Amino acid sequence: MSTTESDVVGHRLYDLVAALMPPMRSITGNGVRATLDLVRAALPAQVPLTVHEVPTGTPVLDWTIPREWNVAGARLIGPDGRVVLDAADNPLHLLGYSIPMRARMPLAELRHHLYSMPDRPDWVPYRTSYYNDAWGFCLTDRQLAALPDGEYQVEIDTSLTEGSLTYGEIVLPGTSDEEFLVTTHLCHPAMANDNSSGIAVAIELAAALAARTRRYTYRLLFIPGTIGSITWLALNPGVIGRIRHGLVLTGLGDRGAPTYKRSRRGDAIIDRATARALAETGRPHRIVDFSPYGYDERQFCSPGFDLPVGRFGRSQHGEYPEYHTSADNLEFVTPESLADSFSILRRTIEICEADRVWRNTSPYGEPQLGRRGLYRSIGATMNRASIEMGLLWVLNLADGTRGLLDIAERADLPFDAVANAADALAGVGLLVEEPSVAGASASLAAASLAGASAASVVIG
Amino acid sequence: MSTTESDVVGHRLYDLVAALMPPMRSITGNGVRATLDLVRAALPAQVPLTVHEVPTGTPVLDWTIPREWNVAGARLIGPDGRVVLDAADNPLHLLGYSIPMRARMPLAELRHHLYSMPDRPDWVPYRTSYYNDAWGFCLTDRQLAALPDGEYQVEIDTSLTEGSLTYGEIVLPGTSDEEFLVTTHLCHPAMANDNSSGIAVAIELAAALAARTRRYTYRLLFIPGTIGSITWLALNPGVIGRIRHGLVLTGLGDRGAPTYKRSRRGDAIIDRATARALAETGRPHRIVDFSPYGYDERQFCSPGFDLPVGRFGRSQHGEYPEYHTSADNLEFVTPESLADSFSILRRTIEICEADRVWRNTSPYGEPQLGRRGLYRSIGATMNRASIEMGLLWVLNLADGTRGLLDIAERADLPFDAVANAADALAGVGLLVEEPSVAGASASLAAASLAGASAASVVIG
Amino acid sequence: MSTTESDVVGHRLYDLVAALMPPMRSITGNGVRATLDLVRAALPAQVPLTVHEVPTGTPVLDWTIPREWNVAGARLIGPDGRVVLDAADNPLHLLGYSIPMRARMPLAELRHHLYSMPDRPDWVPYRTSYYNDAWGFCLTDRQLAALPDGEYQVEIDTSLTEGSLTYGEIVLPGTSDEEFLVTTHLCHPAMANDNSSGIAVAIELAAALAARTRRYTYRLLFIPGTIGSITWLALNPGVIGRIRHGLVLTGLGDRGAPTYKRSRRGDAIIDRATARALAETGRPHRIVDFSPYGYDERQFCSPGFDLPVGRFGRSQHGEYPEYHTSADNLEFVTPESLADSFSILRRTIEICEADRVWRNTSPYGEPQLGRRGLYRSIGATMNRASIEMGLLWVLNLADGTRGLLDIAERADLPFDAVANAADALAGVGLLVEEPSVAGASASLAAASLAGASAASVVIG
Repeated sequence: MSTTESDVVGHRLYDLVAALMPPMRSITGNGVRATLDLVRAALPAQVPLTVHEVPTGTPVLDWTIPREWNVAGARLIGPDGRVVLDAADNPLHLLGYSIPMRARMPLAELRHHLYSMPDRPDWVPYRTSYYNDAWGFCLTDRQLAALPDGEYQVEIDTSLTEGSLTYGEIVLPGTSDEEFLVTTHLCHPAMANDNSSGIAVAIELAAALAARTRRYTYRLLFIPGTIGSITWLALNPGVIGRIRHGLVLTGLGDRGAPTYKRSRRGDAIIDRATARALAETGRPHRIVDFSPYGYDERQFCSPGFDLPVGRFGRSQHGEYPEYHTSADNLEFVTPESLADSFSILRRTIEICEADRVWRNTSPYGEPQLGRRGLYRSIGATMNRASIEMGLLWVLNLADGTRGLLDIAERADLPFDAVANAADALAGVGLLVEEPSVAGASASLAAASLAGASAASVVIG
Repeated sequence: MSTTESDVVGHRLYDLVAALMPPMRSITGNGVRATLDLVRAALPAQVPLTVHEVPTGTPVLDWTIPREWNVAGARLIGPDGRVVLDAADNPLHLLGYSIPMRARMPLAELRHHLYSMPDRPDWVPYRTSYYNDAWGFCLTDRQLAALPDGEYQVEIDTSLTEGSLTYGEIVLPGTSDEEFLVTTHLCHPAMANDNSSGIAVAIELAAALAARTRRYTYRLLFIPGTIGSITWLALNPGVIGRIRHGLVLTGLGDRGAPTYKRSRRGDAIIDRATARALAETGRPHRIVDFSPYGYDERQFCSPGFDLPVGRFGRSQHGEYPEYHTSADNLEFVTPESLADSFSILRRTIEICEADRVWRNTSPYGEPQLGRRGLYRSIGATMNRASIEMGLLWVLNLADGTRGLLDIAERADLPFDAVANAADALAGVGLLVEEPSVAGASASLAAASLAGASAASVVIG
Repeated sequence: MSTTESDVVGHRLYDLVAALMPPMRSITGNGVRATLDLVRAALPAQVPLTVHEVPTGTPVLDWTIPREWNVAGARLIGPDGRVVLDAADNPLHLLGYSIPMRARMPLAELRHHLYSMPDRPDWVPYRTSYYNDAWGFCLTDRQLAALPDGEYQVEIDTSLTEGSLTYGEIVLPGTSDEEFLVTTHLCHPAMANDNSSGIAVAIELAAALAARTRRYTYRLLFIPGTIGSITWLALNPGVIGRIRHGLVLTGLGDRGAPTYKRSRRGDAIIDRATARALAETGRPHRIVDFSPYGYDERQFCSPGFDLPVGRFGRSQHGEYPEYHTSADNLEFVTPESLADSFSILRRTIEICEADRVWRNTSPYGEPQLGRRGLYRSIGATMNRASIEMGLLWVLNLADGTRGLLDIAERADLPFDAVANAADALAGVGLLVEEPSVAGASASLAAASLAGASAASVVIG
């Protein structure tokens, strides 16, 4: 990506992050719908966003769609009658999924429902209680310390009702029905890195993918964390077996080094393609092994599915103090980091698109390259030594069992050197593509999954 | 093991080593029987020791039970008529398996039958000649140097007769007929580390095993080295296929670091369980690869059997100068080392007992742990982070192919964290145990073994 | 190899290299035939060299046998009528495969056909143009700089005619029809290391092999590079499946460390045997992975054949400035290096000859070695500890799946210790040899090769 393009993309992404901050998001409710409206508005017209509504009570795998949560308002009023906290000022002030509550109580009793961070006295923590009925407020520790004794008025006007879980989905068909899955969670309110950055980058990826030829069918999901991926998996048993590569996007805008977390398989094509895209940057980056703690990769990589899905981001949850606080704001993310994350993801996709299994049609001895004029056909933009070595390596290793990623790794050549050599050789008939056999085991896993009988209403 | 328990166990083991020193042991004969009497006396009443007698001449695999050797007395009398050496003072003075000999001869001729250690002038070496007829005396190099010229009287009153080979066996049934084998050799006389320590620790293990619930059936063998394991293997073709884990115990009392020698397989459960028990001590230890030189693991790991049997001890044969000399005495072993060896062995057994192959019954996505109240059910004795991580790791990896040892290694968690998580998950039905498939190849090997037709008379 | 033998062999090889320098060699023509006459003259009388002539136009795999090139003379005459360059002085002066040319032209035009090395002003480069019609002269940069302006006379009296490609072949039958292939290229003129050294060492190997018992059938090829190996592969589909080991010999006389380039398979017996032979020297050496750039291993290791063929030499092409110049002369190679290369190759062959898959006939427990008198049968020439350990290791690992190379590697013993132990054990019936199963996949590959229909005329 050129400096100019990177600059343009970075600022577009940064503006998107800013635009995505306000809605009162949670795992269900109108905050999610408002966010999906912003997503649709940011997408090019030709990119279709489908919004799904899954009714409360629907069984999804081992879980059940919870009641829908909406917030009319939430205020804490002090002994002097003044408003101490108002969720309208900052969605983080309200404990996520707070039950409705109207009550008066002394400070001592109220304290059981107040959350602050003594070691970060100016930050508001982000707290939720999805599956246990609770209510509460989050505030800075300085605010907490300054609260005078007396009677406080709690006014939490929320509703928990039969409704639905909402998520968004973009499908961009490719020449194949094999799929590349990209997911991002959209349940965290008012925070820039976690995960407005993910939503923004997914939008930019969708636009970029819509503008290019696609071998794979791309599916982008905007889902609430955990329950969203579980819901999608429950509702799409027929799609699961077609997923060849997948990425969960989280925390893409902070100043940390880009970080890839491997799939449970550890050596899937997506694991190796991302590693190569990272290596090609020539800048510091991290690759970490799978663990069952984290974001939605936990669900995609659960043992029954075991999908080739990794996670891409920068600093990981728990590694930075701003995580899940009001300090994860627009100063915490940068256009440069957002553009860099997008660039690495786009490159990863390019590698997956270009990675194929070829078979040398003239495998007995070296074919005579000179009389086919292969060198000229590639042109002079590459280092000549690399061109020749790329041709020889591809001919030697393209025996119908290895992909171009395998060859690039074995030959220790840039991926493009190998991919360009393969294109040139295919152009003169010295290579033919092998039918893909990837994902057969994933198909079997999906076939044995007793499909959830949940109904899904498409409204988008 | 608490400090107090360790202290008690250490001194009990040390006293046992001292009690086991005196008998004139060899690979056959009354010294073995006397030793087994001491073993029986040291065992709790409910632990049954069976003594087997296998007749001279019985073919056992490629070998034949040798003649039984007994010693009525053995003295060397000097030119002045005084007793120079007497086996009654120290069994090591008599070359093991010496043939009977009554003769007078000059010192020059006698020298061909005298064994000393010039580089350790105060130590008596331990020498034997089981399969070549020979006689001789072992003495300190100072004694040898002080011998005056003249005629010496040799009085070796031994017998080599049709008799039997004697060994002891304890079987402690478990809920399964799959077996855990523990063996120790009992043919070395008058030495503390090699191998009174092994006999003592095996007794202590038998007592500890008798007092606990057992999944495996435990079989403890007290056998002469080489010919004893060969004999047992020849006589028990039906048992061999049921052996899932095994340990040969040698040299457990010296001040060296605990040392484990892997089975021929190298990655058997016993190899990994012992490695984990050693790592959990947090103290220096060694793990060495299999080699075909050593103790009875040579027989259990011969290619036809290839059993999952390793060897546990401290300093290895040949690594310490006291090995096979009179300096391997009660000063060479310590209660602390004996207790430490016992503790590591007991922990290894605990790990093998707890290691199981589980299968996640809800493998599609994560099961909802919160509604099952799993956290409370485990209690507060463990670090909370480990509890959660243990639950997630076990759910993610328990796919019916991995044991808990595999999971602990992959997750880099303490074995108990994983084992406790598995127990909690099994308690709410999220895990079921897979039937064990280990040892099938060993069964086949045993089935193809032409069983020796040797008769065994049980007298214990 | 003793110092004396090494000295004798080194000087014999050095003299051979000198004798092989003069002919005007190329990939076809009388220079090749003259070289093969020198080869025949240097071979012992009982070693049969067959010379093959393959007609121009014969299709060989993806290639076609080119026109035959011969040189009657080639001179460049200056403006003053004096001879500036004459191929009779140095074959390198003539661009290899120059088309015939008689012309007068000014220096400015002539320059397009003159090749020198500005950075090595006293060396003549070696250049060829086999498959594009061209003519030219090679000269030192000092000669080029001194050329006066004026009209030059070009007199290149070459011919490119329907003829044949010539190569030599020695077959030394073994007790098995499984083959060990040794090849060297003979197309480079007037250079010592590349590849007079290869021709000389191949001659010495043929003589040494003729004088020893052989399990394998040895086939030595003296072929032009690339087109020669392609031709041989095309003409011998029935032999290819019998090749078990192979070595391409290049650059064996320079002062660099011995270097082995692995076969494409990477872990073939030849790869491991050469590695062991190199390790046994105790001197610096290199082992490099396969790459598809190099000499004729490119053809033998093309994916359709994938033969277990490595390459042995010293400094590699491109690593030394003298490569493909007049400085690759008799001062660049040494008798010591030539003898060392020969010695390592002979040892590699010895290891391949001795490497067998044995099966322990008494695999249940250790067989009783003492009663078989094994120790005496081996004698006292080896270290006793190694003898015993060799016996135990071979008995333990010879389970019908491992070769002696495997055992030597696992036991970390010298190959001969293991081989001698195996011989001793086989002598008393404790080992039997397993039928070889190597090379089955290579046979299948050869069977699926559509055999070239080229005719070959044997005249040697």
